[in-house]
Amino acid sequence: MKIPPVKGTRDFYPPQMAVRNYIVDGWKKVSLRNGFEEYDGPIFEYLKMFQIKSGDEIVEQLFSLQDRGGRDLALRPEITPTLARMVNQQINSLPKPIKWFSVPRLFRAERPQKGRLREFFQWNIDIIGVDDVLADAEIIFTTVDYLRDIGLTQRDVRVKISSRKLLSAGLRNIGVPEGKLDSLYALLDKYAKMPPETFDEALSAQITDSDAAVKIMEFMRATSLSEVTEAVGTGPEVESSVEELAQLMDLLGQMGVSQFCDFCPSIVRGLAYYTGVVFEVHECAQELRAICGGGRYDNLLRDFGGPSISATGMGMGDCVLGILLEEKGLLKERLALHKLDFFVACVDGAYRQDAVKLTMKLRSAGRVANFSYKAGKLGKQLKQASDQNARECIIIGEEFKDNKLAVKDMATGEQELVDFDEFLSRFDSG
Amino acid sequence: MKIPPVKGTRDFYPPQMAVRNYIVDGWKKVSLRNGFEEYDGPIFEYLKMFQIKSGDEIVEQLFSLQDRGGRDLALRPEITPTLARMVNQQINSLPKPIKWFSVPRLFRAERPQKGRLREFFQWNIDIIGVDDVLADAEIIFTTVDYLRDIGLTQRDVRVKISSRKLLSAGLRNIGVPEGKLDSLYALLDKYAKMPPETFDEALSAQITDSDAAVKIMEFMRATSLSEVTEAVGTGPEVESSVEELAQLMDLLGQMGVSQFCDFCPSIVRGLAYYTGVVFEVHECAQELRAICGGGRYDNLLRDFGGPSISATGMGMGDCVLGILLEEKGLLKERLALHKLDFFVACVDGAYRQDAVKLTMKLRSAGRVANFSYKAGKLGKQLKQASDQNARECIIIGEEFKDNKLAVKDMATGEQELVDFDEFLSRFDSG
Repeated sequence: MKIPPVKGTRDFYPPQMAVRNYIVDGWKKVSLRNGFEEYDGPIFEYLKMFQIKSGDEIVEQLFSLQDRGGRDLALRPEITPTLARMVNQQINSLPKPIKWFSVPRLFRAERPQKGRLREFFQWNIDIIGVDDVLADAEIIFTTVDYLRDIGLTQRDVRVKISSRKLLSAGLRNIGVPEGKLDSLYALLDKYAKMPPETFDEALSAQITDSDAAVKIMEFMRATSLSEVTEAVGTGPEVESSVEELAQLMDLLGQMGVSQFCDFCPSIVRGLAYYTGVVFEVHECAQELRAICGGGRYDNLLRDFGGPSISATGMGMGDCVLGILLEEKGLLKERLALHKLDFFVACVDGAYRQDAVKLTMKLRSAGRVANFSYKAGKLGKQLKQASDQNARECIIIGEEFKDNKLAVKDMATGEQELVDFDEFLSRFDSG
Repeated sequence: MKIPPVKGTRDFYPPQMAVRNYIVDGWKKVSLRNGFEEYDGPIFEYLKMFQIKSGDEIVEQLFSLQDRGGRDLALRPEITPTLARMVNQQINSLPKPIKWFSVPRLFRAERPQKGRLREFFQWNIDIIGVDDVLADAEIIFTTVDYLRDIGLTQRDVRVKISSRKLLSAGLRNIGVPEGKLDSLYALLDKYAKMPPETFDEALSAQITDSDAAVKIMEFMRATSLSEVTEAVGTGPEVESSVEELAQLMDLLGQMGVSQFCDFCPSIVRGLAYYTGVVFEVHECAQELRAICGGGRYDNLLRDFGGPSISATGMGMGDCVLGILLEEKGLLKERLALHKLDFFVACVDGAYRQDAVKLTMKLRSAGRVANFSYKAGKLGKQLKQASDQNARECIIIGEEFKDNKLAVKDMATGEQELVDFDEFLSRFDSG
């Protein structure tokens, strides 16, 4: 009976697992050096938790299930609601600011597409309790710190930055009513992904005042803060957003990452919960979806029954990133090649016990070691040693009657006879 | 709106995450040094995949869900069916023997109990393609290698070893029909967990011949291979199983782990797919469930539509293990304590930019660094540095006008003035 895997999921054979580990280990390393602590939540939560603030697109794509008591659950499509729940639960005892990261496995019940699967991993970093654009800058710095670390340059990827606050102030300036903002954000977020005519049509359907629609398009296409205010006018809230963005750009310069960053007012983010700075990272060829996105979400903890506390964060999935690294040739040389320190070959069946004993001793001393399950011809065992990327092959053969091993360097082919006891003593301090 | 987590799941705040990482990282390290390669599969598979061979108890406890096309899926309760599917898919191209490990997140829709949750992690190691008790011995060695590594001794835990082949041969010897074996295994597996009278009643219900029932009880209580043959008689299959167990014990002696191991014929394993050596690890106080279990399952790949190929493996969950490590006091001293290399404190607001710049430079050079979001009193910032377990606190204060930093060792309290450029140059090579 042969059963296939479910479409949109992945089997991680050792070569694919090495890529996943390379990506995830890098995320963890960069998070830790930037001062984030790791957390995680359950794979499923009560369904209603994801209906609070996740945006319609996410809610439509939930994998739902029930527990034995018939309560509705869902596989998590993002970890931010869990983060809000966990922080709210311990809000009084957690030292502030809270700088946490996580690498959750997430799920979407949608048709799989390139770079968008039903099951994926996502790096999340969040800073809670710092009401200062400095925290937004630190989130962007940490993102770039990782991208640089894996070999991407400012010619490969761009951080596109805008402000949801600026957008909402601008939209209110030109007369868009408050109640229409959320659905308009969802549409504007698709600006770069839709054909221009389709987008224009959808915009006209939502914004019937053609003058306002023109101003929105001018806003989206602006390349500087002054073009933005030309399009939508000014006022206290526009001004404070502009000031905040200028300050952010200045901080990114001090942090040494401004060469990666552009102001780009068409960045909106689909999720309903953003309230301030928003950003996405895109590859320069513009052929893939966004590599990551993030921003400030000052009301989310309150919406989840907690206090009003400011927060900012970023999420980066592994699918688009993996495709990009593969395309740029940045994976092969960086994946760990050496799998074994030693392969123990046994040519004479009489010494099989000794080969087993030696292998176990090497392992207990912390070395990565394998052995041949069958004593036999050396050639076959050397091939096994080579297939398993062994650094050295220990050969237990005829000379073992004189208490000697042959140690073969698998890279150079050089081989030397070593006294068995002397060899063992190398691992005594373990 | 406050929503609780789902019962039987866990929130991993940073302290709980540190424990999980300690356990999982140890599993990975020991797997790698024993020559296993990492793999993983999807969190969900088609429901029918788990109905092939997983045993009734597991099938009853599945979390099931549907995809958009109405196909029945289930969250994985174990990874062995996925392993069988993946190996069968690439059976011709995978180099043999296959030595793989995984640390899957698994799910059971049952009432949570001590050491048994609805969501947990499980270390799995498997050797496929070695039809030799040497592979079973290697699985047990690797298990003990880990248990020793985390500080458990033969006075804390015991490996209890038996053989499903011996049991089935013995049961056939005393006249139990083939068709009754699977349900009898499930009952015998509960021998140690049930009150004796309840067990006797359940056994009489399945085995109406009271003479046979007595012999089964003698088998279960035997403490040596000779007591086993006294109870159920002998024959070619009993003899070959006895010989295999003797060989296994001999190999475990050569490998240096026999002081952890006992022959224990009441070890059965509930799952239907075991065919040879079976084992469990129990803590000596007998107050917790089994820490892990495993054995040989030579027919599973064939049952999943693949070739007839021998296999043996082990699975260890994180819940019972975590409780045991906590009880034995083996966690505290082993969890990573130092979280930061540097905390950068800024006493004079005029130098905030420099504090930010310095922190980012340290991070880019691979150091774990944090900074204070607000310039202000030194005492408060030193407390932050201490709360975050910083090794050193860099103080940017009055002396910065002369291009000097104070570097404070947080353990000794000693503090020295260092030239800023000299300090920076320490990190130039990255």
